[in-house]
Amino acid sequence: MTHSTEARLADVSLPAGLEAFSGVTARAPHLATQTQKHGRKLAASLEDAIRASGLKNGMTISFHHAFREGDKTINFVVDKLAAMGFRDLTLAPSSLLSCNFPLIEHIKSGVIRRIYTSGMRGKLADAISHGLMETPINVHSHGGRVHLIDRGELTLDVAFLGVSTADVFGNANAISGRSRCGSLGYAMVDAARAGKVILLAEEIVPFPNAPASIRQDQVDFVVKVDQIGDPSKISVGAARMTSNPRELLIARLAAEVMEHAGLFEEGFSLQTGTGGSATATTRFLEDRMVKKGIKAAFALGGITGPIVDLHQKGLIGRIIDTQSFDAVAAESLRVNPEHWEISTNTYANLTSKGAYCDRVDMVILSALEIDLDFNVNVITGSDGVMRGASGGHSDVAAGAALAIVVGPLIRSRIPTVVEKCTTVVTPGETIGVLVTDHGIAVNPNRPEVAERLKAAGLPVMTIEELYARAISLTGKPQPIEFLDRVVGLIRYRDGTVIDAVRQVKG
Amino acid sequence: MTHSTEARLADVSLPAGLEAFSGVTARAPHLATQTQKHGRKLAASLEDAIRASGLKNGMTISFHHAFREGDKTINFVVDKLAAMGFRDLTLAPSSLLSCNFPLIEHIKSGVIRRIYTSGMRGKLADAISHGLMETPINVHSHGGRVHLIDRGELTLDVAFLGVSTADVFGNANAISGRSRCGSLGYAMVDAARAGKVILLAEEIVPFPNAPASIRQDQVDFVVKVDQIGDPSKISVGAARMTSNPRELLIARLAAEVMEHAGLFEEGFSLQTGTGGSATATTRFLEDRMVKKGIKAAFALGGITGPIVDLHQKGLIGRIIDTQSFDAVAAESLRVNPEHWEISTNTYANLTSKGAYCDRVDMVILSALEIDLDFNVNVITGSDGVMRGASGGHSDVAAGAALAIVVGPLIRSRIPTVVEKCTTVVTPGETIGVLVTDHGIAVNPNRPEVAERLKAAGLPVMTIEELYARAISLTGKPQPIEFLDRVVGLIRYRDGTVIDAVRQVKG
Repeated sequence: MTHSTEARLADVSLPAGLEAFSGVTARAPHLATQTQKHGRKLAASLEDAIRASGLKNGMTISFHHAFREGDKTINFVVDKLAAMGFRDLTLAPSSLLSCNFPLIEHIKSGVIRRIYTSGMRGKLADAISHGLMETPINVHSHGGRVHLIDRGELTLDVAFLGVSTADVFGNANAISGRSRCGSLGYAMVDAARAGKVILLAEEIVPFPNAPASIRQDQVDFVVKVDQIGDPSKISVGAARMTSNPRELLIARLAAEVMEHAGLFEEGFSLQTGTGGSATATTRFLEDRMVKKGIKAAFALGGITGPIVDLHQKGLIGRIIDTQSFDAVAAESLRVNPEHWEISTNTYANLTSKGAYCDRVDMVILSALEIDLDFNVNVITGSDGVMRGASGGHSDVAAGAALAIVVGPLIRSRIPTVVEKCTTVVTPGETIGVLVTDHGIAVNPNRPEVAERLKAAGLPVMTIEELYARAISLTGKPQPIEFLDRVVGLIRYRDGTVIDAVRQVKG
Repeated sequence: MTHSTEARLADVSLPAGLEAFSGVTARAPHLATQTQKHGRKLAASLEDAIRASGLKNGMTISFHHAFREGDKTINFVVDKLAAMGFRDLTLAPSSLLSCNFPLIEHIKSGVIRRIYTSGMRGKLADAISHGLMETPINVHSHGGRVHLIDRGELTLDVAFLGVSTADVFGNANAISGRSRCGSLGYAMVDAARAGKVILLAEEIVPFPNAPASIRQDQVDFVVKVDQIGDPSKISVGAARMTSNPRELLIARLAAEVMEHAGLFEEGFSLQTGTGGSATATTRFLEDRMVKKGIKAAFALGGITGPIVDLHQKGLIGRIIDTQSFDAVAAESLRVNPEHWEISTNTYANLTSKGAYCDRVDMVILSALEIDLDFNVNVITGSDGVMRGASGGHSDVAAGAALAIVVGPLIRSRIPTVVEKCTTVVTPGETIGVLVTDHGIAVNPNRPEVAERLKAAGLPVMTIEELYARAISLTGKPQPIEFLDRVVGLIRYRDGTVIDAVRQVKG
């Protein structure tokens, strides 16, 4: 055959850069045998897959965090990389949680040198806030992470993606099998962009696996592992359901705001996210929707059981799911045809060609602090220590027609409304309304909303009044003592730096 | 807010390349108003969309050819580009057909300077074979096209993609609405890779449209048009059904080969493609599968009604569809949950991380010529004029465990089996069996297959014997008279040049 091509092209001058055919497998050695064609991706062990991936010291590794506090993949893989002697890695998971505290040792030992993450909690966040790392971490939003990848700042060399089922060719999802986290919205981003993609799969199923949330043409290696995560811990912490009377009060008030802000019409859309009040708000919408005889076109975001409930009752047409926040949401994704899985790029990336967050009418968001300019802090606590996540907060605030922040005016004798946020994550110009247990404040840039809420008899105050109320109850908080050293850069969704987190003193 | 960020970052030295936040819309002007957020993609006219796309002379435009002879998008857009004064464009559709003859004028006038395509037919192919273009066209396989894009040779600047329905944000498919071609497998490739993507949509439907074969985060502009294509003409020509007794004889023999070649086992997979005998083979498989009590795991490829029929009878588990070859296939994609739409990258690209064609057990392929080395020509006719398409031929031949070529020994007094193919598209080493109406030849590199077919009593001969039979019936054909000038380069799926097509004399 080679000879024949040579003869055929003997007097043809090929354009620059083109070469003559030199055999079917010359540039595709994997086609040499059927065994290689079909079996080339299945690695005998994680070590084998890592070696085959070509990972080198100094490269960037990525993970998804859909199991949240139940994740068993990040620590497992980094332990393995440490044991194999890797150093100076950049860790770029979609987020980190309290369960990731074992990373502290790997940072100390130099296995991990840099971190990009949406957030951190617990001992790891505490250690980094106290100066564990030489280089500041980068805290990005969910959409902002994709932006940083697509603009070239963040290059994912090897992605390690936990999935509950995969076939040997890499078709994978997390709605079948044992440990099901539901949507693989974060993982879909990495699968599409990482240089090499290694699936850690709990179960190898017959080809072709369906649905292919991650597709065979995105996957390099498949490794069978015992457990990728504990789904019972997805809804621990931020994603929990509440029975707290104060949170329920706020949730009811937030539902009133949604009803009267001017956007509660047939075909509206919503995102209610996580946090006790936020998720509870969803439940208070039902009666209002039924009474008015309207249905929502879609619900977006991190999806919870109450959203699924409204969908099943016919009150929400479609569920657009980038992260399933509980087992009900994960199961709904499996069984409800109008419950769709989307990547974080489709969800919230400013520089994707179209993000769902730009199409949302109303979003309920949480806050650790909100200041007199309506700037929101969802990262640092009142002690200046990082204990939260940027998440989709700034993404959806910017995209939605109306962003509603909910939270108690005071938490454990600490005011939520402050003069200036310790850390700004979401700029105030994108926040429309603040709902607290002491009243509602509307951003002066949304006078039409304030008028509507007042007309509906809701307790609208200025944010300065809410601040004064808080201070009258708690006294003015002592300023937090920071060192000059920067331990974290808060990246806005467009890649700019919106704030810096300093090392906490002591 | 800007001021606040400046103050917060006053004493922070930002890492190289990072800038401070300067306002929510500073880098996202489309977020300034709700109207812009929601309506920014809908163009008032094709001209508006073209202007907004930034298309310039010398750039590359792309299209899908899923409507085949019924396509109404390619000619429409190129007419418009000509009227707008564009010149020196590279035309890179997934393929071209007889209906594209109006392009001849646009080539003559310099609007189109270069062409990449899987094939050509009719007057356009004839004109190019006779020297219409200054630069040779590049003929690629379906998978090879994606390879050329991903390796940077072919840069799609603006893709013009016809869809039957889209919402204003760009979620689109071709299984709903009026003119439904079914799978958008080719378009999915361009939507994911083109610099700018313009949808030509017959119908604008409420957001969010589903399924989103093409997603909002891949689309720049949406234009409403009268008609994108005539689906009744998809199955004209190569994709027709046959009642020709000789084709049916060959099809029956091909089904016997499939039954006895050693791969007809529970969970096998198949692709039967197009061409009279190829599609008919599918129908003859049914009895054999029932008799043996086996089912196929999946059928791949260009999908036809007979494949859908076997699926609906439970004999084929899943249909993996990159191109729907008739209305039955298009409708099945709409209604059958186990009928999946895949991109051409997932279908057949050698350098995707996993192509379905590598997983196929048996494929039925057509041929204009097959030579004594089993090399196949699917491009040039016996007069040396281009009249066919590379398609998925070389892709699936290389991937499948057994590639079976079917065709009559003689067509209109012209032998199909020849000493040397006029043009080599698919290398003989990837072809296992030739089935003709005069007997079966097995590639000497597959002795185990020859043994099995002989044991089953099938009429196995050498290809030399088939050649001798053909020549004895038709006489040795006169050599075709070519000029030296190259009018087409045949690109193998790995990007190399496997043959060159010369200008036909006269």
